Amino acid sequence: MSATPIPQEKVKITDSFFSAYQALVRSEVLPYQWKALNDEIDGAEKSGCIHNFRLAAGLETGEFHGMVFQDSDLAKWLEAAAYCLQDQKDEALEADCDRVIELLEKAQQSDGYLNSYYTVKEPGNRFHNFRDCHELYCAGHLLEAAVAYKKATGKDAFLQVMLRYMDCLMEHIGPEEGKLHAYPGHEEIELALVKLYDLTKEKKYLDFARYFIDERGRQPYYFVTERGGQDADAFRFSGNDAHGMRYFQAHEPVRMQKDAVGHSVRAVYLYSAMADLALRLKDDSLKAACERLYDSLAHRRMYVTGGIGSTHHGEAFSFDYDLPPDTAYAETCAAIGLVFFLRRMLSLEPRAEYADVMERALYNAVLPGMSLDGKSFFYVNPLESDPVACELDPGKWHVKPVRQKWFACACCPPNLARLLANLGEYIWQLGDSSLYVNLFIGSQTSFSMGGANVRVEMESGLPFEGSVRLRVHVDKPVRFKLKLRRPAWSRRYACSLKASLNEQGYLCIDRIWQDGDELELRLDVSPRRVYASPLVKDALGRVCLSRGPLIYALEEVDNGENLCLLSLPRDAELQEEKLDGVLSGMVGIRAAGRRLNAETPLYGYEPPVQEAEGVELRFVPYFAWANRGMGEMSVFVREDV
Amino acid sequence: MSATPIPQEKVKITDSFFSAYQALVRSEVLPYQWKALNDEIDGAEKSGCIHNFRLAAGLETGEFHGMVFQDSDLAKWLEAAAYCLQDQKDEALEADCDRVIELLEKAQQSDGYLNSYYTVKEPGNRFHNFRDCHELYCAGHLLEAAVAYKKATGKDAFLQVMLRYMDCLMEHIGPEEGKLHAYPGHEEIELALVKLYDLTKEKKYLDFARYFIDERGRQPYYFVTERGGQDADAFRFSGNDAHGMRYFQAHEPVRMQKDAVGHSVRAVYLYSAMADLALRLKDDSLKAACERLYDSLAHRRMYVTGGIGSTHHGEAFSFDYDLPPDTAYAETCAAIGLVFFLRRMLSLEPRAEYADVMERALYNAVLPGMSLDGKSFFYVNPLESDPVACELDPGKWHVKPVRQKWFACACCPPNLARLLANLGEYIWQLGDSSLYVNLFIGSQTSFSMGGANVRVEMESGLPFEGSVRLRVHVDKPVRFKLKLRRPAWSRRYACSLKASLNEQGYLCIDRIWQDGDELELRLDVSPRRVYASPLVKDALGRVCLSRGPLIYALEEVDNGENLCLLSLPRDAELQEEKLDGVLSGMVGIRAAGRRLNAETPLYGYEPPVQEAEGVELRFVPYFAWANRGMGEMSVFVREDV
Repeated sequence: MSATPIPQEKVKITDSFFSAYQALVRSEVLPYQWKALNDEIDGAEKSGCIHNFRLAAGLETGEFHGMVFQDSDLAKWLEAAAYCLQDQKDEALEADCDRVIELLEKAQQSDGYLNSYYTVKEPGNRFHNFRDCHELYCAGHLLEAAVAYKKATGKDAFLQVMLRYMDCLMEHIGPEEGKLHAYPGHEEIELALVKLYDLTKEKKYLDFARYFIDERGRQPYYFVTERGGQDADAFRFSGNDAHGMRYFQAHEPVRMQKDAVGHSVRAVYLYSAMADLALRLKDDSLKAACERLYDSLAHRRMYVTGGIGSTHHGEAFSFDYDLPPDTAYAETCAAIGLVFFLRRMLSLEPRAEYADVMERALYNAVLPGMSLDGKSFFYVNPLESDPVACELDPGKWHVKPVRQKWFACACCPPNLARLLANLGEYIWQLGDSSLYVNLFIGSQTSFSMGGANVRVEMESGLPFEGSVRLRVHVDKPVRFKLKLRRPAWSRRYACSLKASLNEQGYLCIDRIWQDGDELELRLDVSPRRVYASPLVKDALGRVCLSRGPLIYALEEVDNGENLCLLSLPRDAELQEEKLDGVLSGMVGIRAAGRRLNAETPLYGYEPPVQEAEGVELRFVPYFAWANRGMGEMSVFVREDV
Repeated sequence: MSATPIPQEKVKITDSFFSAYQALVRSEVLPYQWKALNDEIDGAEKSGCIHNFRLAAGLETGEFHGMVFQDSDLAKWLEAAAYCLQDQKDEALEADCDRVIELLEKAQQSDGYLNSYYTVKEPGNRFHNFRDCHELYCAGHLLEAAVAYKKATGKDAFLQVMLRYMDCLMEHIGPEEGKLHAYPGHEEIELALVKLYDLTKEKKYLDFARYFIDERGRQPYYFVTERGGQDADAFRFSGNDAHGMRYFQAHEPVRMQKDAVGHSVRAVYLYSAMADLALRLKDDSLKAACERLYDSLAHRRMYVTGGIGSTHHGEAFSFDYDLPPDTAYAETCAAIGLVFFLRRMLSLEPRAEYADVMERALYNAVLPGMSLDGKSFFYVNPLESDPVACELDPGKWHVKPVRQKWFACACCPPNLARLLANLGEYIWQLGDSSLYVNLFIGSQTSFSMGGANVRVEMESGLPFEGSVRLRVHVDKPVRFKLKLRRPAWSRRYACSLKASLNEQGYLCIDRIWQDGDELELRLDVSPRRVYASPLVKDALGRVCLSRGPLIYALEEVDNGENLCLLSLPRDAELQEEKLDGVLSGMVGIRAAGRRLNAETPLYGYEPPVQEAEGVELRFVPYFAWANRGMGEMSVFVREDV
């Protein structure tokens, strides 16, 4: 019972909330990142990305700059730009893209190879270290960009570059004798190859992706073999010995894997490709593995925000229920990858729960990665932050109390841009005579169904208001099932048309649709208390607030310092308030709370006491934190029972 | 109003609790460590310590093994052995000592220099890196050992070796032009020089110690100067960049320092020397600095166990109230150093609070470092431990769930041995016509007072029973004040003789003592709840139990897994129970508690619920944890209010 996402070209976003984000990507994020890639931003970390390609193309002389995976920053930017061009013509942007694609053509080697690091810095060393050197990762990102650019502009040049590069890779890597039985240390190319297959319908690309998936984790480990069997320094490069082959999800064949382990971005990129292949190959064992890994990830290893990756050591998963708020990694890219994975799980089997988690991650783990002005970014998304701790506790070196302009490892900002620019693809699905609505993002889409041309418009007040309206336009009456996700966060709902809740968690409206039919779904976005499992030690005795799909947080700017002293009585009324300033348009939550008196000795025989006067607690949407200066923040607050 | 500790040679410990520890040091710890130093223990980390000295003496050929400070392990062992010999003749042990002292003589260079690393591994490089290379640290430990050995045996050879070495050091280091204006990266020699001064009364040694103290932290920093002004890699060696000069307590002159910062062992060794000098030089600014640093340390940066050093990054202090239980460093050596410091603060000014903290650290941060059989050791002393987390969270790599046989960096085991063997020196003080009792450890001491010869015997039931009895023997009636510390942990007390509580927290019995006078002090050791300041985030909503001077903990072996699910109602009765097995002789605490039902989703809208049936919580003394197999442990438990 699979379903197909309606692609971006068939979707126009007209949302009160996300249209502004998309406009920001277009007006701020892409131009800003273009400058960053060209090293034109004062005070930001140098990128060197375009510079490196110019070196590879022989247009400049100098030193390679940056990480071994620096190429991928440009790739993600190009992909984001393609999605913007898909939606809206922009000659200047397209001209920039075309020029840089020309540069890529020039940087491509005669045999199709395209990687600035190995061309400039280590010529002759290509394909010698798949574990660490990100060649296939960069290739995958460039390939995703090329597919997107082809779809957006119809132009062929970039795709041709990448087809030549894929031919080059397939010549050297594969199951055949004499080829390298390699697979990437950082997964990414697998899902890109599926996109290429979807575009070209050339089975060889799907086979190549499957090859990587099947080969991964087989013994003897390729990552040991490629160093001549030397395992001694096997995991040094990766920054952490402790994860071993798990760091790469290469400890066992993927179909045997049960726990989400290792580097979290790699994990969700892998799982995305596994779901892609399970769908296209009707591979039930792969589907079962995806479901197990989803279960591990979403039910035992995910923050309440949808963030994943509990430890900065290896940017990785740790173990079940280990979800510390203040040392969280919860990398923006990992949340983006989680959204990728869940969209694919929804294709394999539409289940409202997948969309619930996807929405949770989108609003609360992806969006926090960017400032409201689109100009600064979080790589790490803690659920609790204290600028003093960030400065003085070396164990929190990775937690920044304010968003940064750019990063030496700048994977997150362009990744955010490409997801936001491609968001149209995450809303609607078609399958089984059904139109699925997974995310309530205001948009229009059109498709054919039962011989009719159908156009559906959705208006949504989310994330702040719970009203969703759909209007159906058909050129002739047609029967199909409209399946609206019933979000778990909504206590109740009211649907203006007769609907039944199916097992997968969708409200199913099965009728013959007439032109102009309208439907209103009213969801309940009133604030709710959210509790973690008591096995999440760090959340014990604490509660967090949500409203609709949003998780809320306390900030020092509203609540004073030492947020840890605050508590929220279990019976305190949660009142909504309109926020102002840079948070204008958003809804906050107020509640009568308490504050402990801190004037006590370090240790004593008397329990802490509440201050006589209560305090008013003010919560703001977590995604919007750290937009009003530097200060403490906490998602969880102690609960008085 | 200073007071002088009664030295070990005037004290005989006859304690129901510590005599067994001292016997263990004699029968198990010293012989075991002697084997370790000689690399004769299968399965333990190699030491190489004796081997290195044999290389330096030209008696063997081969490679230097171990850390740059490996010499100090032997030094601490020798010091511990000396304290044992002080108490009790042991010809075999003394013969071992004499032989290894002969080896030290042979390893000493013709100019007096004595350091196996620089003699064997880097000849010609001595005195080039005081910041990192621990030459003065090793010299200090050897000097402490030589002073102790001279006092214990009257033998002069070791002391003469060290006097020659001190001459060598003073020839190269000092304020005079042409000398190196150096001070040690790891403080230790300062307090050793004071011991040498106390023994020899030669002022030059006190001056040398003062020189180090005065020079420390002056600009330009010697640690920069000694690398030709190159500051670039200034703090790499120390394992952590984040602390900078603070790591070495060398960021500013010691008299200006207000916060306990940097490597915690170094800090308390420094503060010990500062207190020593403040006393002997009547240096009020130094005394004031000691008091400020004590205040920082004991009132804002210390675990409830008396453990110090919150972060494994640099084995260091972090910031006020940052006292995470599960990633604690709380190195055994740091607690030992804290005991050193507090004994010296008590000399500067007898205050019961200093002794309270000293006792807290001794029972709850020093003793946990050793297994009850004296054969394995903790370097790191967490207040909460989960073997799963130790294995799977790379951020807890330093936290071992069971004690280890030996360490590559084996500073703690011999440090424990030397403190336990020298414990006699921590009990009694004389000053101001007063006899102070700081620790209630069964012992006898004798001294002259007001022309009379006095002998006092103390019997103590601590730490498990609250009865303390003293009997005074005098050769003629004599008036003096007996000042018994009134421990903060005792709710009430009863003294059989008329006593008044003075401002310093001592019960003062001022009378003319007759031969055979007896006194009984009854202290209340019934269990108490201890609360941390609410600024200690990790202890919020939690409580720990104490009984007398002991802090208690829950262990998995008694309470099942997932200790985090347990809670203790604020009004639950705390019942004492006699423990058995390896904990026989100890008193545990039982209480009716609750357990949360863990069968809940990772996140939900319903608060966790208690299981219908209550559970019985069983607490054991924290110092005795991890003696019954591997499992979870927690000092703090959630409190139900």
